[in-house]
This record gives sequence, C-alpha cells and structure tokens, in this order.
Amino acid sequence: MSPSKKKAEKKAAKKSATRVEELKKLDKKAAKKAAKKAEKKKAEQKKVEKKAEKLTAAGFCVQPSQRAKVSVRDIDPRSTPGFDGDKAAGQELLALQSERLSELQERLWAAHSGRVPGRRAGRSVLLVVQGMDTSGKGGIMRHVVGAVDPQGVDITAFKAPTEEEKSHHFLWRVRPHQPEPGMIGVFDRSHYEDVLIHRVHGWADDEEIAKRYRSIKTFEKEMADDGVIVLKVMLHISKDKQWERLFERLQREDKHWKFAVSDLTERKRWDDYMDAYDAAIAATSTRTAPWHIIPADRKWYARLAVQNLLIQALEDIDPQWPKARFDVEKAKQRMLDEPGHPLVDDATGATEK
Amino acid sequence: MSPSKKKAEKKAAKKSATRVEELKKLDKKAAKKAAKKAEKKKAEQKKVEKKAEKLTAAGFCVQPSQRAKVSVRDIDPRSTPGFDGDKAAGQELLALQSERLSELQERLWAAHSGRVPGRRAGRSVLLVVQGMDTSGKGGIMRHVVGAVDPQGVDITAFKAPTEEEKSHHFLWRVRPHQPEPGMIGVFDRSHYEDVLIHRVHGWADDEEIAKRYRSIKTFEKEMADDGVIVLKVMLHISKDKQWERLFERLQREDKHWKFAVSDLTERKRWDDYMDAYDAAIAATSTRTAPWHIIPADRKWYARLAVQNLLIQALEDIDPQWPKARFDVEKAKQRMLDEPGHPLVDDATGATEK
Repeated sequence: MSPSKKKAEKKAAKKSATRVEELKKLDKKAAKKAAKKAEKKKAEQKKVEKKAEKLTAAGFCVQPSQRAKVSVRDIDPRSTPGFDGDKAAGQELLALQSERLSELQERLWAAHSGRVPGRRAGRSVLLVVQGMDTSGKGGIMRHVVGAVDPQGVDITAFKAPTEEEKSHHFLWRVRPHQPEPGMIGVFDRSHYEDVLIHRVHGWADDEEIAKRYRSIKTFEKEMADDGVIVLKVMLHISKDKQWERLFERLQREDKHWKFAVSDLTERKRWDDYMDAYDAAIAATSTRTAPWHIIPADRKWYARLAVQNLLIQALEDIDPQWPKARFDVEKAKQRMLDEPGHPLVDDATGATEK
Repeated sequence: MSPSKKKAEKKAAKKSATRVEELKKLDKKAAKKAAKKAEKKKAEQKKVEKKAEKLTAAGFCVQPSQRAKVSVRDIDPRSTPGFDGDKAAGQELLALQSERLSELQERLWAAHSGRVPGRRAGRSVLLVVQGMDTSGKGGIMRHVVGAVDPQGVDITAFKAPTEEEKSHHFLWRVRPHQPEPGMIGVFDRSHYEDVLIHRVHGWADDEEIAKRYRSIKTFEKEMADDGVIVLKVMLHISKDKQWERLFERLQREDKHWKFAVSDLTERKRWDDYMDAYDAAIAATSTRTAPWHIIPADRKWYARLAVQNLLIQALEDIDPQWPKARFDVEKAKQRMLDEPGHPLVDDATGATEK
C-alpha cells in the first residue's frame, strides 16, 4: 500500500470514528431530552388520571340484553352518572383529557391511515351524534372533537335530504362517509333521522321503519367488520331545558340565526320524539354498536361523557407508533455525511453560521 | 255583554298584561346579562389589541408589481417581519387571537353559509399552504386552523395523485374543494405541486408549466369572482432547519412514521425547489391572489403570521350576525303562551320543579 493511500485510509477511519462518536453524543443528548419529556408527561398524566377517577362511566350504555326495558324517560337529563364532581371540576377534566384524546388520535392516524379496513388492520372510529334541537350537538363538535387535530377528523352534517338524495335508498348519502382507516368520523345527525322524524311525521309506515332498522343494523355491522368502532350517542335534554335554550336564542341578536319558527312546531311533538327514540334505541342497540344515552341538561357533563367514550374507543384500539420500515441508523449516518450540515458546522466551526 | 264573558275578558286582559310585564322583565334581565358579557369581551379584546400592536405584518406579501423582483432567497427564514416580540410573546398572542379568529369564523358561517357564491353574497376563505418537508404545514393545521370550530373548516390534503387523478387535467381533483360559502377551506399542499415538483423533476416541460400557470391564474380568478378570498402562503424554512427537523424525526421513535428515505433524496434538489418557488410566485402572484412568503424557521412566528392573514381576510369580509327573518317578539310571545313552560312555573309556583 502506498503511503498516500495509507494516509487517506487512516484519515477516513478517523473521520468515521469521529462520526460514530458524534452520533453517539447526539443520540445521548436526544435520549436525555426525550426522557425528560416523558417524565413530565407521565407526571401530568398521573394528575389527570387522579382527577379522572371521578369519571367511571359516560352516560347510560344500552346493552342489547336490556334494550327493550330502557326508556329515555327513565333517565334524568340533569343527572351526571359516573361523575360526582361539579361543573368546575368537569370543565377542568375536559380540558385535561383533551391532551390525551389528541395524542390517541395522532397515534390512530400514524398507525392506521393508509391501511386496509379491517378488524385488526385499518381501524377507525365513528361518532354518531343525535339529539333534539338545542341538545348541544354543536358544542360536542366544537369542544370535544375540536380539541384534536382537524386533519384527523371528518365531520358530516346531515341536513334535510336534497331531491337527489331522496330518490335513493336512505343510506345512499351516508355510506360514502364511513371513516377511512386512521380517521375519527363524526355524524352531526345521521341515518337515524330516517327512523325518527320520519316516524314522528308518519312519512314512513311501521313496516318501512322496521325495514330501515334492519338496514341500519346491517350497515353498522358491516362497518364494525371493517374495523370501525361505532359510537352512537343520544344527547338527552328535558323539554324545559329546550324551552330555556330556545328562548335565549330569541333574546340574543347573535343567536337569532340559529332559531327557526318550525322549532316551536316540532317541539309540540316532544312525546312522539321520545317514543321514536325509545323504539330506535330498542331496535338498534347491538353488541357492536350499542346506544349511549347522555344526560345533556348540563352541557359540561355531556361533553365530558362523549369525550370519555371517544377515549375509551381509542384505548380499545390501542394504536402504537409504527416501527420504521427503513434502517434508522443508516439514515442518520447518511444525514451526518451530508457536507456542511448544521451540526458538523457547530462541531468543527468550519463555516460560519 | 254577559257578566261571565266580561269576567273572562278581564281575566284575559290581566293575563296578557302579566305576560307583557313578564316579557319585559325577562328581556331586561337578558339585556343586562348580554351587556355584562359584551363589556367583559370588550375589555379582553382591548387587551389583545394592545398586544397585537406588535404584529403589523404577516410575512412578505408579494404584490404583482414587484413579483418579478422577489426571491425567497432574499428572505431570512429566521426573521420575524412585523413582530418585535419574542417566542413567549408570540405564543401568547396566538392563543389570545384564537378567540377572535373563532368568532369571525362563526360569523362567516352564520352570515354566508347556504348563500349563492359571489363577491357580495356567499363569501368564503381558502388558505393554500405550501412549503418544503418539515416546514410546519401540519402545525398550521393543528394550531391555527384547529382553534376554530371544526364544523366550519374543510381541510384537503393533496397527496401524490392516484392513477385516476393523473388521467385528468391537474385541476380536476382540486376544483371540487373550492370552499362553499360560509366555510374556511384549507389546502395542505395544492395544485402548486403540479408546477413545483413537476418542474424540479422535469415531469413537465417549460411550455406545459407555463400553460399550468395560466390555468391556475384563471382558476383562482374564478374563485375570487365567486367570493372566495384566496390566501396563498409559502412556509419558508432554511435548509439547515430542515436538517435539524429531519434528524430529530430519526432520533424519536414516535416520529419515525413521519420520515421517508425519499425526504433525503428530495432535499438534494433544494436549490431547484427554491427556483421553482421563485418562478411560481412570480407567475401567479396576482392582485386578487398574491403569495405570502412566511419565514418559518421559528414555528411560532409562522403560525402567528398565518393566523393574522386569516383574521385580516375575515375582517375584510366583515360578516355580521344575520337579522331574524321572522317576528322575534311574536315568537317570544308564542313561547310564553306555551302551557307549563319553566319560567311560568317559576313565577307562579303552579307546579313543583
């Protein structure tokens, strides 16, 4: 070997050794930073968990075995089942748990997006929100769903159907909104309007309604088979509470746009609506997609309960950060070999920066 | 008139007088509450405005007259043009202004949704976010856009086109995402990829790129004519900052999923990308849809700048709470005439509650 070649090799070996040392130092520094962050997070989580002890349940889950016996009328809309704290404690917990929900959503996206739908592969969550006017559906969107990254959420508001939608099967406009793997889908009203308002107004007869219940069960079963956790919540307010909220809309000029005179006409059918809810809940509470009746006269409680349902669903999926499908150390080395990268400059002072 | 009829009339008159008194009392109470709320809000806004004085600009707006002279290379990615506060002050202002942005969004929705698109009728905002890998596009979605009601926002992430999308005109997949009146649309990457990555990789020749610039200008002009405020931002980071952010992704297991080895290959073409941005910005900065170059080495500044652009756009539209298209007093009276409503019960103590 020529002396010059030997020298070059020696130099290269030295350079490589420096790189390895450099990398070790960098990784150590990063690990230290990560450990500190993890510790802080753990302490915060412990704090949240302690507060969350007060929240053991989230509304009433209607199990299929009891579904024929449950009536929304038996549930006090002012109650706060599973939570013995007051409004301030509830609001504090909502804020604290937002962080947890947000992280779980990011993990869901990281682990499941772009995968094939299925029980073990691409998972997703669908939150179906039903309730009478002023029951707080918008508040759920804003304060519960709004706490997570908007990129991971797909909200669909189902208004009165268009002429085209009416000319199709009632699930035609709903099916395309099944959430993709990795996503949290949210329905603001849903296919249940077709068995609620349609029953109340007699737009569909009993036979047709029964047929629709069957379609809904099949549809939701198919979604569950596709790896979707289907959460159905009925925000349950009292007739008196609706009166107060509607009246407030009339009193405030910034709320007039939310009011329609038809709200008062619809309100007259309150009892019919409660019957329709009871019937729909009895017919469609299944093992994979049970209904949750959420007392909603206290907005803070309803939000906390729905947030808790979402957290539980995501914890059931338990999404993990995906393992790298490339050689991480090799990629690091490649970056360190890049001429003039900022860390090398720092170390050698070769270029000013 | 029979005595009994007289008595009934007298009773009805008395009842009506009570109702009027009742209504007056209720309105007075509501007005007092509203005044208190407005006062509090005004005080808060004043506080925010004082802090916002520090923020006079938001990145560099490329005016059509100067567009040929501007290069992203002339703009320091670490600079904070128009803001002389530090990181803490910037983050505080971002949080404070979120409230303002959120209210403006709600007003936009209330005033313009469901209307016909047009300069004076149905207005909307479209935020187009471009930038190199790790420039902080996701953070804009999460921390700026994420602060408003998710119901009023429509985010579209433009990934590599599918085979079907490739077989159409490059705007085919983009046009359906023009925001509806009342909405804030957001593009995470956009039709600009077709003149950026396509130019850098030579997937389209100069003539084709020039044709696309013209298509883009026409498309954006049509949107502006439809009442859409088109905000185009380029998150401008330095090559060194990208190195740091990519390297951190390699060091953290919870970030590995965000890394692709191709990021390093693409990074080699940094200068070509900067040329492509300069060319695209020069060709498509128009009076109605100018580009904004946002220094983005400091994430907090970039977020603040984009938030400010959104606020300015919404303030330009200046959406007002819609006037009621029904007789408010009549509706109130109708609600007070409802038998057994909660306020009557409170007043008369007729029923227990």
